[in-house]
Amino acid sequence: MSRFINKKYASLEAYTPGEQPRERKYIKLNTNESPYPPSDGVIKAVNEAEVSLLNLYPDPTCKALKEKLAALYGVKGENIFVSNGSDDILNFSFMAFCNDSDRLVKFPEISYGFYKVYAELYGVKYSAIPLREDFTVDITDYFGNNANVVIANPNAPTGIALTVEEIEQILKANPDFVVLIDEAYVDFGAESCLPLVDKYDNLLVVRTYSKSRSMAGARLGFAIGSAELIADLEKIKFSTNPYNINRLTLVAGEAAVDDDGYYVENCKKVADTREYTTKKLKELGFECTPSKSNFIFAKSNKIGGEELYLKLKERGILVRHFSNGKICEYNRITVGTPEQMDALIAEIASITEETK
Amino acid sequence: MSRFINKKYASLEAYTPGEQPRERKYIKLNTNESPYPPSDGVIKAVNEAEVSLLNLYPDPTCKALKEKLAALYGVKGENIFVSNGSDDILNFSFMAFCNDSDRLVKFPEISYGFYKVYAELYGVKYSAIPLREDFTVDITDYFGNNANVVIANPNAPTGIALTVEEIEQILKANPDFVVLIDEAYVDFGAESCLPLVDKYDNLLVVRTYSKSRSMAGARLGFAIGSAELIADLEKIKFSTNPYNINRLTLVAGEAAVDDDGYYVENCKKVADTREYTTKKLKELGFECTPSKSNFIFAKSNKIGGEELYLKLKERGILVRHFSNGKICEYNRITVGTPEQMDALIAEIASITEETK
Repeated sequence: MSRFINKKYASLEAYTPGEQPRERKYIKLNTNESPYPPSDGVIKAVNEAEVSLLNLYPDPTCKALKEKLAALYGVKGENIFVSNGSDDILNFSFMAFCNDSDRLVKFPEISYGFYKVYAELYGVKYSAIPLREDFTVDITDYFGNNANVVIANPNAPTGIALTVEEIEQILKANPDFVVLIDEAYVDFGAESCLPLVDKYDNLLVVRTYSKSRSMAGARLGFAIGSAELIADLEKIKFSTNPYNINRLTLVAGEAAVDDDGYYVENCKKVADTREYTTKKLKELGFECTPSKSNFIFAKSNKIGGEELYLKLKERGILVRHFSNGKICEYNRITVGTPEQMDALIAEIASITEETK
Repeated sequence: MSRFINKKYASLEAYTPGEQPRERKYIKLNTNESPYPPSDGVIKAVNEAEVSLLNLYPDPTCKALKEKLAALYGVKGENIFVSNGSDDILNFSFMAFCNDSDRLVKFPEISYGFYKVYAELYGVKYSAIPLREDFTVDITDYFGNNANVVIANPNAPTGIALTVEEIEQILKANPDFVVLIDEAYVDFGAESCLPLVDKYDNLLVVRTYSKSRSMAGARLGFAIGSAELIADLEKIKFSTNPYNINRLTLVAGEAAVDDDGYYVENCKKVADTREYTTKKLKELGFECTPSKSNFIFAKSNKIGGEELYLKLKERGILVRHFSNGKICEYNRITVGTPEQMDALIAEIASITEETK
C-alpha cells in the first residue's frame, strides 16, 4: 500500500479469484468454466481480418450485439446493457443503485463473495443474511422495501435455485428498491426471471457469457432491465471506461448468439453430467446440495473439506474450497466432461479408501 | 435515469467519445487511432488455437505480459500495472489516490476531457487550470504540494509536450501527492518521464496500446510506478473486475512487445506525416500548435472550426471538433497515412477556396 492511497480503501479486502496455477497441468474444476470450447461460429468470427482491424476502436455502444441479444430474449435494445463480464455489471450496479445512507443492500451471507467486496468498496451498509440450515434462501428475509436486494439464482456455491414465483414475491415486497438477480448459472437448469422484466421496473437480471456460452476468456456480460435502469448503467460505463469491450469479444459475442443451439445443447450435457456425478458422489458417502448450476457442492462423510481439496490438488485435480466455517467441510466442484468427472470420482474413491 | 439511481450521479455528465458512425465509410481522423494494422506477430498470436481456449478465464495477474513490459522498459514486474485501456487506469487512479477532503486534484483546463468526468464521478474537488495563451502548460501552476496532479504529456488536444526536466520540477514540488503523467501520445516524438520512476515514489506514468501500438480495438493500457502505487491499483482492480483483460488481448499484448521495432518504425512514419501535413496546412493559412503527438491541432484563417469540421464530414472526412469556446476555432486532426492526409489537404484546399 502506498502513502497516497485514499484512506477509505486502506482496509479493503479484494476478492480472491480461484487459483489459476501454471506450474502443472490440472483437471480444472475450480472456476466454473465450461468444459466445452466456443462454437464454430465464434472461432470463425475471430479471424485474421478482424484481428487486422485492432487498430480501430470498438463500437462503445455495442449496438450490433445488443440487437442480437434483444432478439434472442424478446426485449428491446434499450433493455440491454453489455459490459466487461458480469463482475463489471455488478460493480456498476453497486455504484449506481446503492449509497451510504438510504439505499443499502441485502444479500445472502453465503453467496458470491464479490457482493460484500463491492459493498465495502463503495461504503454501502449491507446485511449479509444467513441461509437456512439446508442452505436455502428464506425469501421472507428479503421482504421490507428498505434496501436493494442482490441474489444469485441459482446461488453460489450451493447451486440451489429459487423459483420465478419466489423471485416475484421479493420484487413485490421491494417496489422502491432494485432487486438484482444474478443469473450467471441459470442456463444449467434453473428458471430465469427474464419474463418478469416487463412487469417490474425494479428488476435487473444479470447474465454472463463466461459459463454457459464458453467465453470466460472473452469477458462479456449483459444485463436486462427497464430502459431507465439500463440508462443508469450506461451512464456509469460512459463515465468510467466507455470502450470496455474489445472488438474481438464483440464479434465473438454476436456469433455466440447466432449459435445459441450449440450452447443450449452443452448446457444439457453439463446438467446430465452433474446428475451423474452427484449420484456417484452420493454412493461414495457425500452429501450434495440440489444444484441447478454447472457445479456441485459436496461434503464427504469420510474426509474433511480442506483435506479433500488438498489431496485432490496433489493428484492433479483442482476444486474450490472456501475457508468460511459454515461451509468449510464442502467443496465446490465444477462440472467438467464425463471423462473428467470419472477421473475425479476415481481419485475421490481412492482418497476416501485410504483415509478409512 | 431511473428513480433508483444514487442521487450523487443524477447530474453527472458522462464522457462523449469521438463519433463512430456506421452510415457511410469515412476517412477517420477523429479518434487518434493508428492508421497502421497490428504487427504480424499480433495477427499470428490471435489464432484459432487461442480462440478455442476462450472457455477458460484469462490470467488475472497478467504475469507473462507484465514480465515482457518490465523487460522492455527496464523495470520490475511489480512496477507494472496492466488494465482494460488507459481510461481504466485513470479511473482507478482517481478512485485510489483522490478523495473528497484532502486529496484533491489539479489538471489543465484544456486537456483530456475524461479527467473532469472522473473527478465529478468520485466527488473530488478539482482545479482545472487554464493554459497559457499559446496553449502551453505553466508548470509553476502545479507547484504547491496540496493536490494530486494529472497531466497528459503531450497534452491533448494540443499535442504540446513538456520536457522531462519540467515534469521533474512538478514531481519535486509535490512530494506528498501523486503526479500522474498520461503518456498516451508520448511515442510520437515527446520525451517519456519513465527514467524518473526510480527516483520519485509519487510518479505514476500511464501508457496505452491504443495509439502507438495499433491496438485501440483490443483495450490494453499499462502504468509504471513504484511497487506501492502499483499495489494500490491492483487492489482496486481486484475489488472491481479482476479479469478485465481478456485472453486474446493478453496474447496480442505480449506479441506486440516482441514486435516493438515495427511499432517504433510506425511512430516515425506518423511523425514524418505529421510534419508534412502541418507544413501543407500552414501553406493553406492554418495555425498549428507544435504537436509531438499523432494528431494536429489546427485553426484556419479562412473558415471557422465547426464549419470546417462539418464540411469535411460532408466530404467523407471525420476530424474532431470541440465546442469549448477557447478552442472552438480549432480541429484536432489525427495523423493518418500520407495518402489520407493528401486527401484531407485536397478537400481543405477546395473548401477554403469555396469560402473565400
